Amino acid sequence: MRQATRSRENTRGRLMDAALEVFAEVGLDAASVEAVCERAGFTRGAFYSNFASKNELFLALVARLSEMKLEEVESRVHELEADQPQPEPTELVRRIVGLSLDDMDPALVSEIRAQALRDPQMAAAYLAWQDGLIARIAEIVSGLVDVYGLRLRLPADEVARLFVEVADDTSARAALLGLGKEEAGAMLHGRAERLATALVDPPLS
Amino acid sequence: MRQATRSRENTRGRLMDAALEVFAEVGLDAASVEAVCERAGFTRGAFYSNFASKNELFLALVARLSEMKLEEVESRVHELEADQPQPEPTELVRRIVGLSLDDMDPALVSEIRAQALRDPQMAAAYLAWQDGLIARIAEIVSGLVDVYGLRLRLPADEVARLFVEVADDTSARAALLGLGKEEAGAMLHGRAERLATALVDPPLS
Repeated sequence: MRQATRSRENTRGRLMDAALEVFAEVGLDAASVEAVCERAGFTRGAFYSNFASKNELFLALVARLSEMKLEEVESRVHELEADQPQPEPTELVRRIVGLSLDDMDPALVSEIRAQALRDPQMAAAYLAWQDGLIARIAEIVSGLVDVYGLRLRLPADEVARLFVEVADDTSARAALLGLGKEEAGAMLHGRAERLATALVDPPLS
Repeated sequence: MRQATRSRENTRGRLMDAALEVFAEVGLDAASVEAVCERAGFTRGAFYSNFASKNELFLALVARLSEMKLEEVESRVHELEADQPQPEPTELVRRIVGLSLDDMDPALVSEIRAQALRDPQMAAAYLAWQDGLIARIAEIVSGLVDVYGLRLRLPADEVARLFVEVADDTSARAALLGLGKEEAGAMLHGRAERLATALVDPPLS
């Protein structure tokens, strides 16, 4: 990577880190460009040479967080495939979904969706992010189907969308219930495992 | 119903109607108690003798809208049971979920959830509403299971929660895509029918 590009990525990254902190403290509405710049130690000029708007920054932040999760999922899938010839569907989910829930704040996703419903430009960016996410998960699902000869009771993209919906709603529910990370994780994994078991038929033998 | 109670219900109803209009115009944050009172033609005194806060009003509004939907679903279920001895799962869903999507604004639900994630008191009220809704739907599902001897691949309450999650997310997605009512309805019904087919095994014969 060229020096200038690396420095630009670094600035973007530090602005996103600052945005996540400011968001957690004051919410999306009050998380102004000024507050984010101050926290990150950058000028507004530096901000606007990296992001067109506050909304673009927050969407980039959500995209970065979900990208990290996807990479974690993909590496678990590869480990699993190297490891075990024919796991049960629940075992598959347990091994794959067993992710840390630390990084993604359900309030952030929820606020960004609410914002997207108010703002057509944000709507387009939000949909593009969601569709990209679901396409990636559908690919992972299709890969698992091929490797293990599973039979899905719904198309892979619908399965992917369901898992995203369940994950979003369960994370929000855990936060609303004031659950800690472990309990929240257990709730999500329970639901994901039962859903996987319901949606997967065993291979025809 | 006593005169005083009827008049009170009437005031609550008119405040909720006004709140829905004001929300559609300016969003939740800007929909002040003052703006709602002005639209409804009531004083702030009348407002606060009916609702403790703006949030309580909006939650009551969402509860009223979902109650209307539930009653519509229940009456369709009764018609269906009177009508047809053994419908296919997709036919069941088509007949039951074929609801008007006019009344529930996905932006409203989305903003209320975002608000609940910021406000512990609102969180408790939101969860109580959601859990009540899901318990009612689970009862409907259990009733159908009994009447038609269906075999669900998930417990009835998980099925109910999945349908609510799919409906919420699909309505939001339709709004983000700028779909009209008919297209939005078609998208939701398509997903609900496929999900029902996947989650229901035919009766053992």
